[in-house]
Amino acid sequence: MPSTDTISKKAGLPPGSLVHLGRHFTNKVKISVIDYDAEYLSETICKSTEECFPYKETDTVSWINVDGLHDTDTIASIGNHFELHPLLLEEVLNTLQRPKFEEFDDYLFLTLKQLAIDKESDSVASEHISLVLGKGWVISFREHESEIFLALQERLREIKGNIRKKGADYLFYRLIDSVVDNYFFVIDHINEALEDLEEHVLYTPDDHSLKEIQHLKKQLIILRKAVIPLREAIITLDKEPNILIEESTTRYLRDVYEHIIHITESIDVLRDTLSNIMEMYQSGVSNKTNQVMQVLTIIATIFMPLTFITGIYGMNFTHMPELHLKYGYFGVWGIMVIISVIMAFYFRRKRWF
Amino acid sequence: MPSTDTISKKAGLPPGSLVHLGRHFTNKVKISVIDYDAEYLSETICKSTEECFPYKETDTVSWINVDGLHDTDTIASIGNHFELHPLLLEEVLNTLQRPKFEEFDDYLFLTLKQLAIDKESDSVASEHISLVLGKGWVISFREHESEIFLALQERLREIKGNIRKKGADYLFYRLIDSVVDNYFFVIDHINEALEDLEEHVLYTPDDHSLKEIQHLKKQLIILRKAVIPLREAIITLDKEPNILIEESTTRYLRDVYEHIIHITESIDVLRDTLSNIMEMYQSGVSNKTNQVMQVLTIIATIFMPLTFITGIYGMNFTHMPELHLKYGYFGVWGIMVIISVIMAFYFRRKRWF
Amino acid sequence: MPSTDTISKKAGLPPGSLVHLGRHFTNKVKISVIDYDAEYLSETICKSTEECFPYKETDTVSWINVDGLHDTDTIASIGNHFELHPLLLEEVLNTLQRPKFEEFDDYLFLTLKQLAIDKESDSVASEHISLVLGKGWVISFREHESEIFLALQERLREIKGNIRKKGADYLFYRLIDSVVDNYFFVIDHINEALEDLEEHVLYTPDDHSLKEIQHLKKQLIILRKAVIPLREAIITLDKEPNILIEESTTRYLRDVYEHIIHITESIDVLRDTLSNIMEMYQSGVSNKTNQVMQVLTIIATIFMPLTFITGIYGMNFTHMPELHLKYGYFGVWGIMVIISVIMAFYFRRKRWF
Amino acid sequence: MPSTDTISKKAGLPPGSLVHLGRHFTNKVKISVIDYDAEYLSETICKSTEECFPYKETDTVSWINVDGLHDTDTIASIGNHFELHPLLLEEVLNTLQRPKFEEFDDYLFLTLKQLAIDKESDSVASEHISLVLGKGWVISFREHESEIFLALQERLREIKGNIRKKGADYLFYRLIDSVVDNYFFVIDHINEALEDLEEHVLYTPDDHSLKEIQHLKKQLIILRKAVIPLREAIITLDKEPNILIEESTTRYLRDVYEHIIHITESIDVLRDTLSNIMEMYQSGVSNKTNQVMQVLTIIATIFMPLTFITGIYGMNFTHMPELHLKYGYFGVWGIMVIISVIMAFYFRRKRWF
Amino acid sequence: MPSTDTISKKAGLPPGSLVHLGRHFTNKVKISVIDYDAEYLSETICKSTEECFPYKETDTVSWINVDGLHDTDTIASIGNHFELHPLLLEEVLNTLQRPKFEEFDDYLFLTLKQLAIDKESDSVASEHISLVLGKGWVISFREHESEIFLALQERLREIKGNIRKKGADYLFYRLIDSVVDNYFFVIDHINEALEDLEEHVLYTPDDHSLKEIQHLKKQLIILRKAVIPLREAIITLDKEPNILIEESTTRYLRDVYEHIIHITESIDVLRDTLSNIMEMYQSGVSNKTNQVMQVLTIIATIFMPLTFITGIYGMNFTHMPELHLKYGYFGVWGIMVIISVIMAFYFRRKRWF
Repeated sequence: MPSTDTISKKAGLPPGSLVHLGRHFTNKVKISVIDYDAEYLSETICKSTEECFPYKETDTVSWINVDGLHDTDTIASIGNHFELHPLLLEEVLNTLQRPKFEEFDDYLFLTLKQLAIDKESDSVASEHISLVLGKGWVISFREHESEIFLALQERLREIKGNIRKKGADYLFYRLIDSVVDNYFFVIDHINEALEDLEEHVLYTPDDHSLKEIQHLKKQLIILRKAVIPLREAIITLDKEPNILIEESTTRYLRDVYEHIIHITESIDVLRDTLSNIMEMYQSGVSNKTNQVMQVLTIIATIFMPLTFITGIYGMNFTHMPELHLKYGYFGVWGIMVIISVIMAFYFRRKRWF
Repeated sequence: MPSTDTISKKAGLPPGSLVHLGRHFTNKVKISVIDYDAEYLSETICKSTEECFPYKETDTVSWINVDGLHDTDTIASIGNHFELHPLLLEEVLNTLQRPKFEEFDDYLFLTLKQLAIDKESDSVASEHISLVLGKGWVISFREHESEIFLALQERLREIKGNIRKKGADYLFYRLIDSVVDNYFFVIDHINEALEDLEEHVLYTPDDHSLKEIQHLKKQLIILRKAVIPLREAIITLDKEPNILIEESTTRYLRDVYEHIIHITESIDVLRDTLSNIMEMYQSGVSNKTNQVMQVLTIIATIFMPLTFITGIYGMNFTHMPELHLKYGYFGVWGIMVIISVIMAFYFRRKRWF
Repeated sequence: MPSTDTISKKAGLPPGSLVHLGRHFTNKVKISVIDYDAEYLSETICKSTEECFPYKETDTVSWINVDGLHDTDTIASIGNHFELHPLLLEEVLNTLQRPKFEEFDDYLFLTLKQLAIDKESDSVASEHISLVLGKGWVISFREHESEIFLALQERLREIKGNIRKKGADYLFYRLIDSVVDNYFFVIDHINEALEDLEEHVLYTPDDHSLKEIQHLKKQLIILRKAVIPLREAIITLDKEPNILIEESTTRYLRDVYEHIIHITESIDVLRDTLSNIMEMYQSGVSNKTNQVMQVLTIIATIFMPLTFITGIYGMNFTHMPELHLKYGYFGVWGIMVIISVIMAFYFRRKRWF
Repeated sequence: MPSTDTISKKAGLPPGSLVHLGRHFTNKVKISVIDYDAEYLSETICKSTEECFPYKETDTVSWINVDGLHDTDTIASIGNHFELHPLLLEEVLNTLQRPKFEEFDDYLFLTLKQLAIDKESDSVASEHISLVLGKGWVISFREHESEIFLALQERLREIKGNIRKKGADYLFYRLIDSVVDNYFFVIDHINEALEDLEEHVLYTPDDHSLKEIQHLKKQLIILRKAVIPLREAIITLDKEPNILIEESTTRYLRDVYEHIIHITESIDVLRDTLSNIMEMYQSGVSNKTNQVMQVLTIIATIFMPLTFITGIYGMNFTHMPELHLKYGYFGVWGIMVIISVIMAFYFRRKRWF
Repeated sequence: MPSTDTISKKAGLPPGSLVHLGRHFTNKVKISVIDYDAEYLSETICKSTEECFPYKETDTVSWINVDGLHDTDTIASIGNHFELHPLLLEEVLNTLQRPKFEEFDDYLFLTLKQLAIDKESDSVASEHISLVLGKGWVISFREHESEIFLALQERLREIKGNIRKKGADYLFYRLIDSVVDNYFFVIDHINEALEDLEEHVLYTPDDHSLKEIQHLKKQLIILRKAVIPLREAIITLDKEPNILIEESTTRYLRDVYEHIIHITESIDVLRDTLSNIMEMYQSGVSNKTNQVMQVLTIIATIFMPLTFITGIYGMNFTHMPELHLKYGYFGVWGIMVIISVIMAFYFRRKRWF
């Protein structure tokens, strides 16, 4: 659930209204284009929105990357030129939109979540990414600039790269793959946190463990919310054959699909582990309570009878024959030692210490 | 489960009996009609039921809105003129009816629930709305006047509005969309309540938290009861192609469907969160019990041996050599201090304080 | 699970053996016939089994109602005349049989459970009802006479009733509907019991609450055992088109089906509520334990140090300078008051009282 | 999980290796044949394996029953003559094999489990039964002689029995039915044990209850392991029409299928009941802990202040004015009585006793 | 989750990059070939990678077994010669890859996990095995040499073995079968561990039990991660008829599939057993707490009143008539004995000891 903007902000507006939902990053919208084929590659950072329009018609593969969603006019103008459906643009801007795939007549649309570990809060940060695949072009929309596509850009610049020989559909796949690959980092990070937590809970279950368990549960929910709908989206993309996607790319998409399956299985394992840890925590606490109780009971059971005996001989009756025995005092000590030893044996047998 | 009227009240009556189940609002039934096409719009508040009959035949789109369900004669007379099936009318009046979609020969029927937060009781209020889509007309039945369609009416009055150019099926969609959009408010409200509750439970788990958890659980049940059957209804509406619904409207209906999916996912997250909070609450209470136990045990373990020692020297034996030692009293103090220090070390090592 | 007869009693017998399983009601088997069409109606109470045989062939709709299952000869003789399959008769007599629908060549067979609240034991009483729909006749078998079909009989006697104009399939539907409608009473009854219980558990969780929770759980199991298989039965009845059921009746049967869905959803809500109450009960008990612990700890923590101090000055050492101070006694009182106040502050800060 | 033989014993052997897994009963393998048609019946106990071979070709129905699986040669020789697949024989011998149905070209194969209550250990004993239906013959393999088919044999001997007029497929059905009918005894037995246990747990939850709960859970697991795969097997048998099974027998097989459904539903109810009992047990224990705590707290809260007061006046200060008051002693008694009464009122109001 | 290598190591690399993920075993890659038909068999250990290439074209069945995955060049060179898809090779090397089946034009690919009990850590060790079935050849890739295929090799060397007469598809099946058979050992091992643990928990639930429960849970997760995806893989392999697999082999593959079903059912039973043990453990701990509480309460309830009485007569009031009674002291003893007896009766009735 978002804390900055809530989905109900949009309620009541007509469908297709372009409203940006989400955090507003202060940087300007940045549009960059990489245009390439096997032999040629040009990189441009557009000064105006219109600069990216001609790439729609080129024979080469054009990747138009838009960083920043707060300027709805820019998005609308791109949408207009590339003839994107108003509902599609709405979903590009709505960063609370769940991952989904939609097929349109002339293009395919996929929204998904980029996940990263936010070092400061040690929690999963989710960002909204939308991809549109048209004939010879791909547009990617991101909330702001990030490192997620850097490796891919590097690969594009290499003239020998496999990717340069393939079409826009392969680029589309590689963009999805870049995003999904990052999920493994998040899984690994949470996994490590879980291992630390498990160690901690096993030896010292305390209040902090409880908070950490809750924190990790929330991270897994964020992860699930990103992955589960994406799985459905990729199945749909996979199942319906489409003229925009060549057959050779299909196997790669199935590979992405299997990565997602792997991730969901890992999430399930992490959830199981987390609920095991919770169980251990609870058992740890009740175990500790039991130990505390045993200490209390041992102390009370030994000292209450002894104190009672001292009470007896602390009474001020005139006629108390034992008081005047010569070894009365030492006799009492003897009795008390015997009682203590019996008690100790009893607790030993009960394995209380 | 309703507290005013119960569903069993209807048991035993023949099918098609028109009985109003639910709260009786005292206001009169109000029938208002908006008749429009791209260029023309007229708004009428009908003085008699018959006044709305002619709109069935007009070429324009007619939206007949009926507020108030307690007057079964009015409903029956409308049903009669528009040739609505008796079972349909029964479901319009039965406010305990679960959301459902039904296809008839000449019209489509959808009942759903309008949800709002009742400020006073801080709980979700559910109201029954029925929509009938015929050829060129839409009838909406509500329990009483509410603000839910106000924005839509405003939009209709604007001559440039997209909605004015489209048919009755698009109006039908917009009515559904208005109702579903409101669910987001409810989700957001419950979400906020959950965040407050979580904070509260983490620091001071008390009786009140338990009541609040139970209260929120009930709100989620109400929400689920409205949304889950609606999801099925919209799937059915979506899947079967119908001559009353144009193809361009289908994509919009699918958009509504996805909103509902989004809502059900949010409900699941809220439920998970709630059961996490319950878990935290229970762990909090047992943690507190454990702490209380530790305090008790520390106190008892330190003072019982000490009190025993004072008991020893409070005995009245004639022959107790220590009593007459010059520094006996101070020696005893010394022993007691040593015992206390040892105990303190022991508890420190056990991390009990 | 029945307590009078158990299903294993039948094990080992060949299939089709007519054995009555269930409680034996002492009254004689009573066979009553209502024979009607739109203009004519006759009611007969048969003196002998054979009296009902001619109704098989009449052109009018004949409803033969058999009350009492213990006389297997009567059942066998009816079964013989109406050419009912031995396995069907077996299931008519086996009151432990779960609800099911079966299609035979010339007739349809449905068994279901009539549910009612037994006032004495405040629990759900389940009775076995079997319905056979043939061409122009319906036979209903009940364990004994009950009020469940009274309203329907009244309706039949009214000459204007819709039901008189329709065929045996509609009567068949109305019989099912009469039984299912009664389920709502049971739901409402359990719902009220749950509301009372919830109130009770919230304020005074005690042993009785636990027993009541278990009791209600059992009632819900009985309800589920009646409803869930019936849902499947009605789906099967609904899905396969049959010459014995006219199309106009199909919509009514679907209405019954939706009632059953509504009931199963209500059962689910009741189960959730019940498990919430169980959770509240358990939290209530552990909360109470915690409070008791706090009282104990407060008392012990205040009085143990104080008692220790009195112990000190109760010792009989010869040399105890404080004892002879003029204001020693009052000084000790002062110290004890100070200790108590400090303790009180500590507990206040910990919010223990 | 078997304790005598484990399934891993077979790992590493080539498929089709005939190894007997399970308990070795010492008796010799006993082969008995019943050969019959409507008018004729002969019973033979074969002295050698070969004696049963001719029955494969007779026009009458031949039921060859093999008791004892430890002699793999006998089984192999029968398998050879009746041309049974090696994998089939492997499964006949593997008593750890789960129930399954398999269709071969000339015969059908079904393995299932015979269940009985072992009186000594009060637990469910599971035995392996395999049935092969060929054209005019049925072979049944059992681990050792048992009473399970006695009733069926009796029925066969009656010349008027329905069974004598029918084919091998009906015999096959009756054999399955005999085994499944026995499950009801087990269900009833566990059900009774559960009712006793529930009573016990409600009044005296103790260690023994916990062991009994665990014991019954294991019985239900054995039951489930026998029934759930059998359900699937019977569905497969039912669904695929086969020339070996006549249509009239199909309805009887569906009847068996419904018995199995009934049994699985009963198992589910038993499991629910068992987990309710576990819940009651846990609540009972924590309730008892709470009561014990209350007793402790009442005692401590009353006697600690009183003992403190006696401690005060047990001090040996020289100047303690109260000690010398004439009615000081009785005054102190008064104060202590007042304190006790106040405490009693407090606990009453808190409903602690 | 692997501790040596994590899956995120591969993130960012282009698809088809050959990276070995997993433990690096130091031994050299070892390639061995068994080439056979019904009459002929040759065994070769290849000195260079190229030596195994010719076997692709032979008419005999060739089994090429590659032990060791760390040398990516060798794998790449084999892949190249046998025209294996880059994604396939990637999965051969990625030991974190989940089991899967994939159909290629000229060969079938299956990865699965070899499981064994690691004696030292008493935990399940999982190793990655990949099988490729081509026309007349099978390649198996393993992480390092192990005993898993020894029995199969022995069988191959026997000239009479059934396996020698069959094709590469049957060898492929036998390889899968060898791996799956081993799972039964793991199941049996865990099962034994569970039986020991259950015994232990029933009598002495302690911290160690909790750790053992957690440990076994992890083993079951590893088992599930190997088996569940394999089940899907084998279904896919089974369902799609393929020219590489002869019909007679299909029944054997279905046999493997049923083994896997058997294993998954056993895993479910083990999980149930494990959660029962956890439940027993928790009940055991809370039972023990309760017992400890009872001992404490009995002691406190008996000695607090007695000590109070001794306190009374330890007071130093001048006027305390009882003190001077002749039998006062013995009277007090009498009262204390009576109180103790009453208490003992009370606890007996409450069944506290």
